[in-house]
Amino acid sequence: MNQLAINYASDAKSARFALAQLGSAQKRTLLHKMADQLIAHSDAILESNQQDMVNGRKSGLSNAMLDRLLLNPERIEDMADSVRQIADMPDPVGEKFDHRVLDNGLELTKVRVPIGVVMVIFESRPNVASDAAALCVKSGNASILRGGKESIHSVTAIGRALKHALSEMKLPAQVVTMVEDADRAIMEDLLRMTSSIDLVVPRGGEGLINYVTEHSRIPVVKHDKGLCHVYIDQYADMDMAIRIAVNAKTQRPGVCNAMETLLVHQSIAPAILPLLCKEMTRKKVEIRGCEASIKLCPDAGIVAAKAEDWDTEYLDLIMNLRVVDSLEQAVEHIQQHGTGHSEAIVTENYHAAGLFQKIVDAAAVYVNASTRFTDGGQFGMGAEIGISTQKLHCRGPMGVRELTTTKYIVSGSGQIR
Amino acid sequence: MNQLAINYASDAKSARFALAQLGSAQKRTLLHKMADQLIAHSDAILESNQQDMVNGRKSGLSNAMLDRLLLNPERIEDMADSVRQIADMPDPVGEKFDHRVLDNGLELTKVRVPIGVVMVIFESRPNVASDAAALCVKSGNASILRGGKESIHSVTAIGRALKHALSEMKLPAQVVTMVEDADRAIMEDLLRMTSSIDLVVPRGGEGLINYVTEHSRIPVVKHDKGLCHVYIDQYADMDMAIRIAVNAKTQRPGVCNAMETLLVHQSIAPAILPLLCKEMTRKKVEIRGCEASIKLCPDAGIVAAKAEDWDTEYLDLIMNLRVVDSLEQAVEHIQQHGTGHSEAIVTENYHAAGLFQKIVDAAAVYVNASTRFTDGGQFGMGAEIGISTQKLHCRGPMGVRELTTTKYIVSGSGQIR
Repeated sequence: MNQLAINYASDAKSARFALAQLGSAQKRTLLHKMADQLIAHSDAILESNQQDMVNGRKSGLSNAMLDRLLLNPERIEDMADSVRQIADMPDPVGEKFDHRVLDNGLELTKVRVPIGVVMVIFESRPNVASDAAALCVKSGNASILRGGKESIHSVTAIGRALKHALSEMKLPAQVVTMVEDADRAIMEDLLRMTSSIDLVVPRGGEGLINYVTEHSRIPVVKHDKGLCHVYIDQYADMDMAIRIAVNAKTQRPGVCNAMETLLVHQSIAPAILPLLCKEMTRKKVEIRGCEASIKLCPDAGIVAAKAEDWDTEYLDLIMNLRVVDSLEQAVEHIQQHGTGHSEAIVTENYHAAGLFQKIVDAAAVYVNASTRFTDGGQFGMGAEIGISTQKLHCRGPMGVRELTTTKYIVSGSGQIR
Repeated sequence: MNQLAINYASDAKSARFALAQLGSAQKRTLLHKMADQLIAHSDAILESNQQDMVNGRKSGLSNAMLDRLLLNPERIEDMADSVRQIADMPDPVGEKFDHRVLDNGLELTKVRVPIGVVMVIFESRPNVASDAAALCVKSGNASILRGGKESIHSVTAIGRALKHALSEMKLPAQVVTMVEDADRAIMEDLLRMTSSIDLVVPRGGEGLINYVTEHSRIPVVKHDKGLCHVYIDQYADMDMAIRIAVNAKTQRPGVCNAMETLLVHQSIAPAILPLLCKEMTRKKVEIRGCEASIKLCPDAGIVAAKAEDWDTEYLDLIMNLRVVDSLEQAVEHIQQHGTGHSEAIVTENYHAAGLFQKIVDAAAVYVNASTRFTDGGQFGMGAEIGISTQKLHCRGPMGVRELTTTKYIVSGSGQIR
């Protein structure tokens, strides 16, 4: 094991106990100080970011990647604002629930507590560093943050700014640890430190997530791809259906809660598909359709879908289109091809709506609304560290509350067995 | 990948959708039929168990292991009773909570749903097979059960009995899958089937748990060792403290919620230790103590504790004893050596009780009660599949409720972003 990795993990483990002593008001103060320090260290952060930008251009990063990497005074303001918003959210730690008194008089209560040490592994956007650090502080967790090698100077500078706030509050610097070494071996060692790190959150593309799942012996909450479907039922309101499908596909195609595949009931398909295809084409969406859809709209420019298309998360202005025989066939398609993220039905039928919500297995199941709402902000949970597509611990947007665990506190008067 | 493993996983995935269609009453009926079939197939189960016993004696299993493996008519009755008890528990599936209405009119509700496919890996006790199958049916999960190779005939026979009940209800046999092949390669393949298996629960010794954690790419809920402490504070009621410590150590020393280490505040140590050591010695407990404890009780037969003793889960009539300077030192000791299972303080002091419950990080933190209560049955949750010592998903006893996850159902009237 790399000594640096061992130190990172054991220092974070010690620091978490110091953080756990803070009350809600102190955590709020700390976070506001962190926001102030980001602004105060703008120059240093921007300078480091320039280094990353120069290196990024040299190594041939795409313009999209470079844009994600870029910081400017406005973006640093946004980062600080986001930290302030997290500061002012309600504190989930200490919440008590499920109180019960056992027959022997023992009083049992669940209390919400920090998880401990959370490691967040992310890619190019440097603002993830301050967001993740703030979410972890708010939930009482020490954090170990590891950005991509392309953002290492920016992330290191952000870390230094945040540490000034920790030092102002006389807290150990290791409450927030930035891994300042892009060596993969260090990350792999960290991913095996089960006795000091409690949770790993990978944020990024499929490659990163698969890498972390493969190497981690620590529990992982994945924020995996979203292959979301909208199903237009035979009893759908046509205007609403078109509005929802177009919104789910085009409002922001590059995100995980955007629609990739549209399923349309055969009874409504002849009437709705010509209108729908026209609208999608107007929005410059490429449609890859089943045979039936091409037959129904021979002039809509629908490309014949290939088998692998139904499993492709485009994150782009491309969509799949399939005409289905029934609600059951739509559900089967979703069970086979969905990733358990967000699925929607458009229908005016009471039974169809209930059945779809009951049997579709996904983090969020919608009736008559766009899949684009699956988001911590939209759900009223505030900032999120990601959207969990797995079933353990939490499912859907992962905010500060989902960054906590519970323990039982049991109060007795001498009970023995 | 082994074809058998692929079939096990994909069949279980299909079967879970059939199981998810059942209402509470049908699941209850199914479980009662399962209990009846266990009794009806007693002869076949006992015969298979005889095979395992013969093989076990040949391969030199210890008497304790053979006793765990042994079935007789009475033990089969107990297995059936346990399944009936699980049948009659409240159904956690379908519970709705955290309802809220967003500003845009979207209605958001969390609903409790089955996890999907749960794989349980256990060791010699065959009754775990019927218990685990029943807990999974109750919570709506298809199960893949893999016992140790020493119990393979018994577990296979139990599986066949349970499948009769599934067939009576016209349900797919793969709602409950017994892995009838002790080949480790099949298990290793199953542990990588992330797209069809949702959760792995290892039940057994440290070796099994480490093996599963190392090989699984599927989320694991561990039921790890318990190195539990009792701390006798300076303000403890002495009689109560002795009663609790003796109970926690001796009432059933072989289980994970038994005490391994006793910490005693230095102010109370001179008065309490002679009485306590006498009582422990009367119960045939070997005491491994710190220097101070030996000085205080030179004639109590205390053996000097070695460094590794503080990290040893004895599961036997052996305990560690340490005199500490303060509550803080007790907590530090627990942070360093505890496994986050069950920890107790004995005190009459309000502040000490609250502080201990606040800062000790464990699944269950007790004031003035024995650690032996950490148990699904004792906590009023009914049968449990294990006691989780990890922080993600659930912590403490894992019953039917903890074998579920949630999804958001979102009901709209055409909302788009």
